[in-house]
Amino acid sequence: MPSRMRAVSHTQVELGGFWGEREATNRRETLPIEYEQLELTGRIAALDMTWKPGEPDPPHIFWESDVAKWIEAVGYALATAPDPALEAQADAVIAAMAKAQQPDGYLNVHFTLVEPDKRWSNVRDWHELYCAGHLMEAAVAYYEGTGKDTLLRMMQRYADYIGQVFGSGPEQKRGYPGHEEIELGLVKLYRATGEQRYLELARYFVDERGTQPHYYDLEARERGEEPGRYYGRAAYGHPYAYNQSHLPLREQRTAEGHAVRAMYLYAGATDVAAETDDDSLWPALDALWENVTERRMYVTGGIGSAHEGERFTYDFHLPNDTAYTETCAAIGLVFWAQRMLQAKADGRYADVMERALYNGVLSGVSLDGRRFFYVNPLEVTPETLRGSATMPSTRVERQDWFGCACCPPNIARLLASLGGYAYSEAEGEVWVHLYGAGSVTGLLDGRVTLRQETRYPWDEEVALMVACSEPTAFTLALRIPGWCQGARLAVNGERQAVAALTEDGYARLGRSWRDGDRVTLHLPMPVERVYAHPRVWENVGKVALQRGPLVYCLEEVDNGAHLAEISLPRDATLEARWSPEIGGGVVTVHAEGDRRALAGRGDALYARQPGGHVRCEITAVPYYAWANRTPGEMTVWIHEC
Amino acid sequence: MPSRMRAVSHTQVELGGFWGEREATNRRETLPIEYEQLELTGRIAALDMTWKPGEPDPPHIFWESDVAKWIEAVGYALATAPDPALEAQADAVIAAMAKAQQPDGYLNVHFTLVEPDKRWSNVRDWHELYCAGHLMEAAVAYYEGTGKDTLLRMMQRYADYIGQVFGSGPEQKRGYPGHEEIELGLVKLYRATGEQRYLELARYFVDERGTQPHYYDLEARERGEEPGRYYGRAAYGHPYAYNQSHLPLREQRTAEGHAVRAMYLYAGATDVAAETDDDSLWPALDALWENVTERRMYVTGGIGSAHEGERFTYDFHLPNDTAYTETCAAIGLVFWAQRMLQAKADGRYADVMERALYNGVLSGVSLDGRRFFYVNPLEVTPETLRGSATMPSTRVERQDWFGCACCPPNIARLLASLGGYAYSEAEGEVWVHLYGAGSVTGLLDGRVTLRQETRYPWDEEVALMVACSEPTAFTLALRIPGWCQGARLAVNGERQAVAALTEDGYARLGRSWRDGDRVTLHLPMPVERVYAHPRVWENVGKVALQRGPLVYCLEEVDNGAHLAEISLPRDATLEARWSPEIGGGVVTVHAEGDRRALAGRGDALYARQPGGHVRCEITAVPYYAWANRTPGEMTVWIHEC
Repeated sequence: MPSRMRAVSHTQVELGGFWGEREATNRRETLPIEYEQLELTGRIAALDMTWKPGEPDPPHIFWESDVAKWIEAVGYALATAPDPALEAQADAVIAAMAKAQQPDGYLNVHFTLVEPDKRWSNVRDWHELYCAGHLMEAAVAYYEGTGKDTLLRMMQRYADYIGQVFGSGPEQKRGYPGHEEIELGLVKLYRATGEQRYLELARYFVDERGTQPHYYDLEARERGEEPGRYYGRAAYGHPYAYNQSHLPLREQRTAEGHAVRAMYLYAGATDVAAETDDDSLWPALDALWENVTERRMYVTGGIGSAHEGERFTYDFHLPNDTAYTETCAAIGLVFWAQRMLQAKADGRYADVMERALYNGVLSGVSLDGRRFFYVNPLEVTPETLRGSATMPSTRVERQDWFGCACCPPNIARLLASLGGYAYSEAEGEVWVHLYGAGSVTGLLDGRVTLRQETRYPWDEEVALMVACSEPTAFTLALRIPGWCQGARLAVNGERQAVAALTEDGYARLGRSWRDGDRVTLHLPMPVERVYAHPRVWENVGKVALQRGPLVYCLEEVDNGAHLAEISLPRDATLEARWSPEIGGGVVTVHAEGDRRALAGRGDALYARQPGGHVRCEITAVPYYAWANRTPGEMTVWIHEC
Repeated sequence: MPSRMRAVSHTQVELGGFWGEREATNRRETLPIEYEQLELTGRIAALDMTWKPGEPDPPHIFWESDVAKWIEAVGYALATAPDPALEAQADAVIAAMAKAQQPDGYLNVHFTLVEPDKRWSNVRDWHELYCAGHLMEAAVAYYEGTGKDTLLRMMQRYADYIGQVFGSGPEQKRGYPGHEEIELGLVKLYRATGEQRYLELARYFVDERGTQPHYYDLEARERGEEPGRYYGRAAYGHPYAYNQSHLPLREQRTAEGHAVRAMYLYAGATDVAAETDDDSLWPALDALWENVTERRMYVTGGIGSAHEGERFTYDFHLPNDTAYTETCAAIGLVFWAQRMLQAKADGRYADVMERALYNGVLSGVSLDGRRFFYVNPLEVTPETLRGSATMPSTRVERQDWFGCACCPPNIARLLASLGGYAYSEAEGEVWVHLYGAGSVTGLLDGRVTLRQETRYPWDEEVALMVACSEPTAFTLALRIPGWCQGARLAVNGERQAVAALTEDGYARLGRSWRDGDRVTLHLPMPVERVYAHPRVWENVGKVALQRGPLVYCLEEVDNGAHLAEISLPRDATLEARWSPEIGGGVVTVHAEGDRRALAGRGDALYARQPGGHVRCEITAVPYYAWANRTPGEMTVWIHEC
C-alpha cells in the first residue's frame, strides 16, 4: 500500500514567487521578532537555569516547545539562506539548552527547577513529551540546515532516556503523551540517524495510546486524584477523546478532541505506518481522513469548531463566527496531508494540503510577517467586533504574541520549510505537488534539476523546465489540482491528453527527458462558487468564492459595514482583477451584488415585507490577506440570491 | 400628557378561554409545586431564623424574593378563586416572616443571621432592596386578595425604615438598589395605603440613580474595594450600565445592561412619572421604549441578547441560538408596557404587551404548568442539543426549578393577575386591551359589566356583551391590534366604520349603552410573514410566521431534524388548522416547503453546485407551545426561497 515516494528535502528547493516572498518575510521579519518575544517573555533566559523557588514567573512547562520551534525554523532557513548572525543566536540558545539538560538526558526547565518531584507524574496534562518532540524536530532541522549536531546528539540522549522510562517493559511506565508530537520528532530522529529504536518508540506511543487499563486513570490514581476530573469533560463524548486516548487509534473512525493534538497524532501514526509497513493503521487513518476533510473541515482548511477544548465537535458543525480553527491545527493538517500524500500518492491529499496552506495557515500571520492569529474565524460579525468572553478581539486583529505562543513559531517553521512540501521523488519518478516560481535541484541522484516559471496562484500558466547533463528517463508526475477543470498540458509545445495521462490527480509524463525540455501547464482559474453540504446549519443559502487554491472573503473595508445585508445573485458575473494596492498585490474578485434596503418595509424592527435591494459593488479579497487593513466585519460565506 | 386611564383590578375580572386555562393550570399545578420547591430548597424553613453560623447552606440574599413572588401570586389567585388550604399555607409563611422581621422593620434572613454586619453595605450587588420590593408587591396583592393586612403593615414598617436609611438627608445613605424592583413595590404600597411618602421614596430611588459622585463608587471604597472591580465589566459600554446607573435615567436613551433590571427600572419610573405628573421622565422613557421595541426586542417579545450579563447588547443584535431572553425579562416588558399603556393610551404599548405575553412569557412555563424555562431561545441547533458551557440543556428542556429561581414564581404571579391587564377605565371610558373569553364587573362605579365571548387567539371573532341595570353613556374603546388588518366592527349587528372610529390603536364607540348590547369584532387572522430589519445579521433571508398575536416555530418532532435545510417558498400558501392533539389544542400552520437535498451536488462537504430540493410538509406550532413534546431542534426564523 505505501508508495516509495519521498518528499524532496527543502534543502534542495529554492522558492520564488508567492511562497518565496512569504519565506523571505518569514526570515527577515518573523524570525527576529519571534526571538525578541522569546527573550522578552523569559523563555530564553529560563534556559540559564537561574530561577529559584519563591521567585515570580517560574519557567512554564511548555516554554521549551516555543524555543524549539524557533530553532527548527532557523535550521530550515539557514539551509537555503546562510545568516551567520542568526546562526550564532541559535547556537547560543542550543548551548544554554546543553547546560540545562540533565545528566540522564532529561530536558525541561520547569520540571527540573520548579517541580522536580513531579517529573513524568502527569503526562496526560503536562507537556514534557510534547516539548521533547519539538526539540527533536528542531535538532534534525538544525543538523540538516547547518551540519551541526550538538542538539541532535542531545536529543538522541533525551530520546534514549525517554525510551528507558516509557515502554511495555516491567519496570517502565506504559504512558504516552497527553499532547502528541513526540511521535513526529522520533520518526525524524530515526530518519536522520538511522537508529531503529526511535521509530520503535514512536510506534510504541501510537500503539499504546487508549489501551486498557487506561494509563491516565492509573497515573491519576497514583497522584491521588480521581481520574474523572479531567479537562476534556465537555459535551463531545468520552473525556479522553480530548487527547484522542478514548480508544486505541486503530479503533477510531471520527476525529475527536483537541484539533492540534489530533493532527499530530494522525501525522505521527502515518509516519509510523509508512515506515513500518504496518497496514493495520490504514483503515483508521483513511476513515479519519474522510471524517476530517469531508465532515469537519472549514472551506479554508481550518479545523476545530469549538473554542471550548479547541476541538473537533461533530459532523457538519462548522460555525463561522465562533470557529476556533487554530493556526496550529491547520498547520497540523498540512503535516498530516503531506504524509498521507507521500504514502498514498493521491492528489486529494495534496488538494487539502494546498487548501490549508493558502488559506487557513497563511491567515495566521500578517502580510508583513509581524503579527499573528491564533484563531482564524470565517466571519467577523458586529458581535465579534464588540468582543466577548468567547469572542475576544484577538479574532479581529492579529496580535504581537500570545501567552500560549504555539502558533507564531509553528507558522515560522512551516514557512521556512515549505520547499519540502512541493516535490517528491520515487524510483524513476519526480512528483510536483505545489506550483510556484522556483527550482529544485539534485533530483534522481543529482541528475535532474527542475525549474518552475509561473505567477501561480495568480496566473493560470505554469512552465516547468528540465535541466539534466544527459538525457534521463523518468516520469514527471504533475498534480492536476482538484479545484481545476480543463487543465491543458504541453511538452515542448506539443499538446498532451491530460485526462488520459492523469491518475489519482497527477498527470504522468514518462519519457527520456533532455536538458531544456519545457512543460507548460495551463490551469484554468475562473472564480468558482463553492457550496457547503446542506447539513452545515450556518451556510444554508450561502456561497463561498474560490479562485485556484484561494478562498475569498468580504471585508468591511471594501464593502462597507453590515456584510450580512449583501447578497450575490446566482447569475452574477465574477470578475478577477489584479489589485496591486492590497497586500503587495493580489487578485481580487468583483461582482455586482444586492444590498438589502429599507425601501418597501421601512425602518421597523419587524415588518410584513422583506424590503427591497439596491445594487452594490462586491469586492472579495483572498482570505489569507484579510485583517491587514482597517479592522472590521468579514465573511467568507455570502448570501446568494 | 398622562391620561387618567387606570387598569381595572384583576379582582374584578374573570378569565375564561385561553388565559382562563393558563390561570387555572397556574393555580392547580404551578403554585403547589412552587411551594414544594420553596420548601425543598430551604427557602421557607430559612424564615424560622434557626440557621447558625458554621452550618451549611446559609439562607441566600435573595431567597425572600422567591417566597414573596409566590405569596403575591397566591394573593392574586385567592381574589377570584378562594382556597382555604392555600390561604392557610400563605398565612403561615407570612407569620414566619413576621417573626423574622427585625424590630426596626428590616427583613432579610441572610443579612440578619449570616452577615449581620454587612446590612446595606453593598446595595450594588446584594439584593436587600430588591427583596423588599417583592415583599411590598406581595403585601399589596395579599391584602387585596384576602383583606388581610399583616404583611401590608409589616411592609409599611419596612418601607418606613428604608425611607429613614436612604435619601438625600445629611444622615442618610444616598444609595439605590443594584437590582431595581422596590420602585414598583413602593408605588403599589402608596396606592394601597395612600401614603405619599412611599411614592416619594420611589421617586427618590429613580432620581438618585446614576448621579455623581456615584454612590456605588463611594460604597465600594467604604468597603475597601476598588470601584472598578465590578461584574458589569463586559463589552457593552460603562460597567455600571449593567444596572442602569451609568447615567441618570433622564439622560438615558438606549436600553443597557441586565434586561430584567432595566425593565423593572423603566416600569417603576413610568409609575413615578404617571403618579407625580413629572413630565421630565418621558423623553427618556419614550426613547428607551423605541430603542427596546424597535431595535433590541426579539419577535417573541423576548429581550436580553447576551448570556453574559443577561443583558441588552446593541441595536439589531438578536442572535437566535444564543438568545438569553430570560422569562423574567419578557415579564418585565409586560409590566412596563402595561404602565406605558395606562399613561399613554396608545395601542402600540398593548401590542408589545400582547406579543410578550403570548410568546416570550408563556414559553417560560410548560403546558402542564410544572416545568420552566429560564432562557427562551428562538433557535435550538444541533450545537445547543449537544450542550456547551454557554448553551446548556436548560435551553432545550424546561426544568423543575433553578438555583436562581426568579422565573418560576414570576410567571406564576403574572398569570395569576393577568385579568388586571385586560381592561382599563377612565372618566366615562372603558378600554379593552386584551381579548379572551371572560368578564369584567364593577366598571364605571359598578354600573357596567362586560362579557367577552370568543375563542381568541384561535378565532377571529370576538363578541362583547354589555350588561347594565340602566342605560349608561360611556365610550367603549376596543383595541384594534397592530398585527391586524381589515378589522370589522358591529354594534347590535350594525356595521361600524372601524378606521374612522380608531385613534391610537383603539376603536372608540361612544353611546348610551343598554343592557344586552352586543358588539362584534372581527379580527382577520391570516398567517402573516414577518421579516426582520436587514441589520439583524442572523435573520437575513429568513421569515417568521405569525397568526394573530402568536409567533410560530418549527420543531424537529413535526418536521424532522436539520431544520436549517428547510425553506419556505415566498409564495407558499400558509394554511391554519386546528390541531387538537398538540398542547390541548392549538392552531398549527402548514405549508409546502423545500428541503435541500444532495441531488445535483453529492455528499461532499464542499461542491460546485448548491444541490437540489425535495418538497416537504412544513408544520409550525405556536412558539409558546414548543418543547412540550420530544426535545429536538427548533427555529422561529425559517429560510425563505
